[in-house]
Amino acid sequence: MAVRAAVAGASGYAGGELLRLLLAHPHIEIGALTGHSNAGQRLGALQPHLAALADRTLEPTTPEVLAGHDVVFLALPHGQSAAVAEQLGDDVLVVDMGADFRLAEAAAWEAFYGSPHAGTWPYGLPELPGARAALEGSKRIAVPGCYPTAVSLALFPAYAAGLAEPEAVVVAASGTSGAGKALKPHLLGAEVMGSMSSYGVGGGHRHTPEMAQNLSAAAGEPVTVSFTPTLAPMPRGILATSSAKARPGTSAEDLRAAYAKAYADEPFVHLLPEGRWPATGAVYGSNTVQVQVALDPAAGRIIVVSALDNLTKGTAGGAVQSMNIALGLPEETGLPLDGVAP
Amino acid sequence: MAVRAAVAGASGYAGGELLRLLLAHPHIEIGALTGHSNAGQRLGALQPHLAALADRTLEPTTPEVLAGHDVVFLALPHGQSAAVAEQLGDDVLVVDMGADFRLAEAAAWEAFYGSPHAGTWPYGLPELPGARAALEGSKRIAVPGCYPTAVSLALFPAYAAGLAEPEAVVVAASGTSGAGKALKPHLLGAEVMGSMSSYGVGGGHRHTPEMAQNLSAAAGEPVTVSFTPTLAPMPRGILATSSAKARPGTSAEDLRAAYAKAYADEPFVHLLPEGRWPATGAVYGSNTVQVQVALDPAAGRIIVVSALDNLTKGTAGGAVQSMNIALGLPEETGLPLDGVAP
Amino acid sequence: MAVRAAVAGASGYAGGELLRLLLAHPHIEIGALTGHSNAGQRLGALQPHLAALADRTLEPTTPEVLAGHDVVFLALPHGQSAAVAEQLGDDVLVVDMGADFRLAEAAAWEAFYGSPHAGTWPYGLPELPGARAALEGSKRIAVPGCYPTAVSLALFPAYAAGLAEPEAVVVAASGTSGAGKALKPHLLGAEVMGSMSSYGVGGGHRHTPEMAQNLSAAAGEPVTVSFTPTLAPMPRGILATSSAKARPGTSAEDLRAAYAKAYADEPFVHLLPEGRWPATGAVYGSNTVQVQVALDPAAGRIIVVSALDNLTKGTAGGAVQSMNIALGLPEETGLPLDGVAP
Amino acid sequence: MAVRAAVAGASGYAGGELLRLLLAHPHIEIGALTGHSNAGQRLGALQPHLAALADRTLEPTTPEVLAGHDVVFLALPHGQSAAVAEQLGDDVLVVDMGADFRLAEAAAWEAFYGSPHAGTWPYGLPELPGARAALEGSKRIAVPGCYPTAVSLALFPAYAAGLAEPEAVVVAASGTSGAGKALKPHLLGAEVMGSMSSYGVGGGHRHTPEMAQNLSAAAGEPVTVSFTPTLAPMPRGILATSSAKARPGTSAEDLRAAYAKAYADEPFVHLLPEGRWPATGAVYGSNTVQVQVALDPAAGRIIVVSALDNLTKGTAGGAVQSMNIALGLPEETGLPLDGVAP
Repeated sequence: MAVRAAVAGASGYAGGELLRLLLAHPHIEIGALTGHSNAGQRLGALQPHLAALADRTLEPTTPEVLAGHDVVFLALPHGQSAAVAEQLGDDVLVVDMGADFRLAEAAAWEAFYGSPHAGTWPYGLPELPGARAALEGSKRIAVPGCYPTAVSLALFPAYAAGLAEPEAVVVAASGTSGAGKALKPHLLGAEVMGSMSSYGVGGGHRHTPEMAQNLSAAAGEPVTVSFTPTLAPMPRGILATSSAKARPGTSAEDLRAAYAKAYADEPFVHLLPEGRWPATGAVYGSNTVQVQVALDPAAGRIIVVSALDNLTKGTAGGAVQSMNIALGLPEETGLPLDGVAP
Repeated sequence: MAVRAAVAGASGYAGGELLRLLLAHPHIEIGALTGHSNAGQRLGALQPHLAALADRTLEPTTPEVLAGHDVVFLALPHGQSAAVAEQLGDDVLVVDMGADFRLAEAAAWEAFYGSPHAGTWPYGLPELPGARAALEGSKRIAVPGCYPTAVSLALFPAYAAGLAEPEAVVVAASGTSGAGKALKPHLLGAEVMGSMSSYGVGGGHRHTPEMAQNLSAAAGEPVTVSFTPTLAPMPRGILATSSAKARPGTSAEDLRAAYAKAYADEPFVHLLPEGRWPATGAVYGSNTVQVQVALDPAAGRIIVVSALDNLTKGTAGGAVQSMNIALGLPEETGLPLDGVAP
Repeated sequence: MAVRAAVAGASGYAGGELLRLLLAHPHIEIGALTGHSNAGQRLGALQPHLAALADRTLEPTTPEVLAGHDVVFLALPHGQSAAVAEQLGDDVLVVDMGADFRLAEAAAWEAFYGSPHAGTWPYGLPELPGARAALEGSKRIAVPGCYPTAVSLALFPAYAAGLAEPEAVVVAASGTSGAGKALKPHLLGAEVMGSMSSYGVGGGHRHTPEMAQNLSAAAGEPVTVSFTPTLAPMPRGILATSSAKARPGTSAEDLRAAYAKAYADEPFVHLLPEGRWPATGAVYGSNTVQVQVALDPAAGRIIVVSALDNLTKGTAGGAVQSMNIALGLPEETGLPLDGVAP
Repeated sequence: MAVRAAVAGASGYAGGELLRLLLAHPHIEIGALTGHSNAGQRLGALQPHLAALADRTLEPTTPEVLAGHDVVFLALPHGQSAAVAEQLGDDVLVVDMGADFRLAEAAAWEAFYGSPHAGTWPYGLPELPGARAALEGSKRIAVPGCYPTAVSLALFPAYAAGLAEPEAVVVAASGTSGAGKALKPHLLGAEVMGSMSSYGVGGGHRHTPEMAQNLSAAAGEPVTVSFTPTLAPMPRGILATSSAKARPGTSAEDLRAAYAKAYADEPFVHLLPEGRWPATGAVYGSNTVQVQVALDPAAGRIIVVSALDNLTKGTAGGAVQSMNIALGLPEETGLPLDGVAP
């Protein structure tokens, strides 16, 4: 099976990671690569790690350039995917790595993104209940945000099993590639190395409604999420600490059983043995999520720690995993299970 | 005024930072420096950054060596301070940078440290209500833990003002110097660089009862703390995200007013202007704590972010600040307000 | 073709990287994994990034355990390979990732390693003149050191083309995984983060005679190497700056032509276009070496910068590349060309 | 003695470090702070580590604003200092932290900077032969570049003692603050963390003629310098490895004696005991330079390693040290000798 794939937005971090994975995918033939301000440049100058594509040139993001592919990945700024997707045929698999089609509720979209809601596509987090079925054969995929992937996988088993109260508290640390390649002073190496900092405190981060949507669906009732992101001095990785009050009578055994059941057959979720705790270094460059769960008896809270690579499972790897499902390929095809460490 | 100071445990990270500060203190004359397994070695080999003390030799930690000083700092492993302190006269100011004398309740000590409780000394966090008065003229000081300093300063104003429910949730990231110079595989540079990881999840970290003690005192009722520490890829710094449900009717203005009042006259707490958020890089090597507070209206939670240098305000700087008070010196003497950045 | 491979010394950094590559190799079946002090432990605790092998248990390094494999990789401390290799049959491919069989001259070995010389095996740097032919069908391979790989690939084309004087000056920076998992104070994360340091200055580094051997062979005359290694605050990577006086009359064009010719058909050496310079980040986790060359007209020197991943092309990737040749497989089989970046 | 100081260019890294030092200087009163595009902004937003100046506002860089100070520091882009300096009176001490007045030869200036030569001021590296005397009472100071400081202190004793051949080879690693706060893609945190890279290879770096000037003066004959800078994943610090062929008959004892003599009375140069090697982490935030020297007998080369903080001794600390001399203050006044470590 030969699948021809185009990537719109190939000069950014998400696009670069996607290309790294597609190069290793046995069924993918890499077609058009497009950019906006970078159109006309050699990929070797923009993504120097992609030795195999160093001589490829970026083209502009036009319908003509994107035509003639089986799959088109959109790694565009938020709000730009809908216009491009409209111009692609219904028979083309379109995988949107932006936020545009993630939220089901128009009101939540408009409150957090300030523009009209474009619609809702099947959600590319196969581990969530019902998600895998919705992706099979789909021609449209909304890839989740990196934080919502980490947090939803951390908490949905507790909510699905009815063990947690519907008020989640999440603090997550992200590597700076999560902020993209934008030239902002606080993202300079001299500023971020050796420093942890906060941003988007107080509920304003755009990934918040997406987390609430996923956890509410799992719980069968509205779940609020207090989400605080932090910026960590590393290029990649998310370490999320997610917690909620345990429902009365919840035991540590109940909790562990719920997670063991939820992840028994999931190839990319590694529920760690007791006594070991997640580290982003262990999943660097891989599509694996490390998860560990604990019950704090004194505080009466369920604490779940999850670690993933924001560019791999958190974006491009999740996109490829969902593409595999949509195309009918084995879900693990072309995806690294093992991290690059140390 | 010339104050002769000895440091027991001068080869570790806390001892090294203390010496850096004491070298810059206008009233301190550095006397004996002791070590355990390192006794007999040159300080230049153990603390290569202390150029001014490169030729000093570590002595063993004995009563004879520690005799004849006005102040003795104890930077020893937990559980070893009591025996050394007993041998020092009542007229000597003893500043314990270990945990031994921090907790008021013997039961909490024994549950978390597994040894008999040694007692309780005046607590060296002058910003807490009543703490400064207890330190004045004291001959014994228990320096707080680094995490409790960050978390107590983050949340006590909300509790003291009656704005927060008594269940705090804290996630904090620490630089790896917080784990000391112990030779453990997970602390190797290759392991920690580029990786965030968890440890002590589920309420087991020894700093938890100290936080609960401080916040309960401020609240006038028992406060539980769910505390999750994480290890960040940086040598120094703590970034703590502390939150609690807001009491009904609490407004963002109430919150800001409580913090503005609590920190109006504190030289080392920098309540940031609205719109700016703490970063550990900004307080590197300084005794300053950056604090910012927000109300998350959707989740109904108070979120406070605090940043400090775990070795300075979190340990050695806090020790010098409290020593200054005990000796009747101006509190800021010899303490850097400005961080080393970038 | 199914090749059964054992790894002796699977708990260290080189062993871990080798396993990551072997897991992705289409013809390898991973057999016995052995350790010394770690025998009996689960690999999941020692190499947490190798999710696919988390449940495997390390066995002791004995002839019985290593028997029955087509290939045995030795990732053992220097000096231990010979004894193990002797017990393996002549029909088994033995790939030594230690130093034992790299040097041709017993005197050089004894001067730098202080023990009797074990012998000389075909040298696993296929890019060197004649090396590939010696590896074809061989049952013994000596994998080069990480620094010699970076430096030999940087300078051999200039020497082979007769463009450089026989006195090379090399300064190279290595990530801390190059020092292995040994528990030494100067390798603690708090020590290495944010700090560059020197070691082995003055010609004493054990990789020096190996560089001289390779460059002398290329030059057809003795080449001396002044080699200074430095330790960089990163987990992986070597950036080597290698230089030598240009022979009179050497032009920039001559130089570029020599390198273009040497590397025209090499899959893993990426001679960068003019104007771009190597970065270790671009080859993270890949088997690619980035090389760039310049002529400094004022100083009359040839300057070559090379970047590689010390654990991949510098050790485990080079081992797999050479194994592929020895087994008659396509040389690139199972080896990543593209780095994990950013 | 009260000295009123203005800083033109207070928003950059050099300006920030200068202010940190001036705040701790017992005789300095900080006057006007100016910026260009940042004029009108609060310093707290631009230099968040300077808690003591958080409420100060940047003014434009005009003669009126800079008038009325005893000392004016210029931390401006190269080429802009002359115009500002002209407008300041001859009785004002002007300390230029840019390159404009460092080079004695107009031809060298024009070749490397491409603009007319502005002149030559007394050179602010007091450790060089004759430099201290030229600074005493001077009203103009040209602060050296960070790399030339590291390299000149590494090699001048060997040249002054006639021990080294006049062809120096230097490879130096710098933290990314050396590149300033410019918003360039290759300086983003995600790009620099975990990666060493090269730039300015082949003799083109602008600091090259300054090194040659200093070493030639020490040698009494022209010395060429082959200089290769590299970018290291750390915010601050320079580690320079400088070497030259030893003149025939030079012994290790000769070498050590030359350095011991050169640095016997220098407060800020720490010639390390034999067996210890420089690390930038040990001089973080301090005005100290660590130096170590070795003779490589096989290669016949003198190897000198030096470590300094590019922003402190390499720029702002060197500026304050020279200012102290010019003003007749003790040279060490207000300058930290001890690094912030780990």
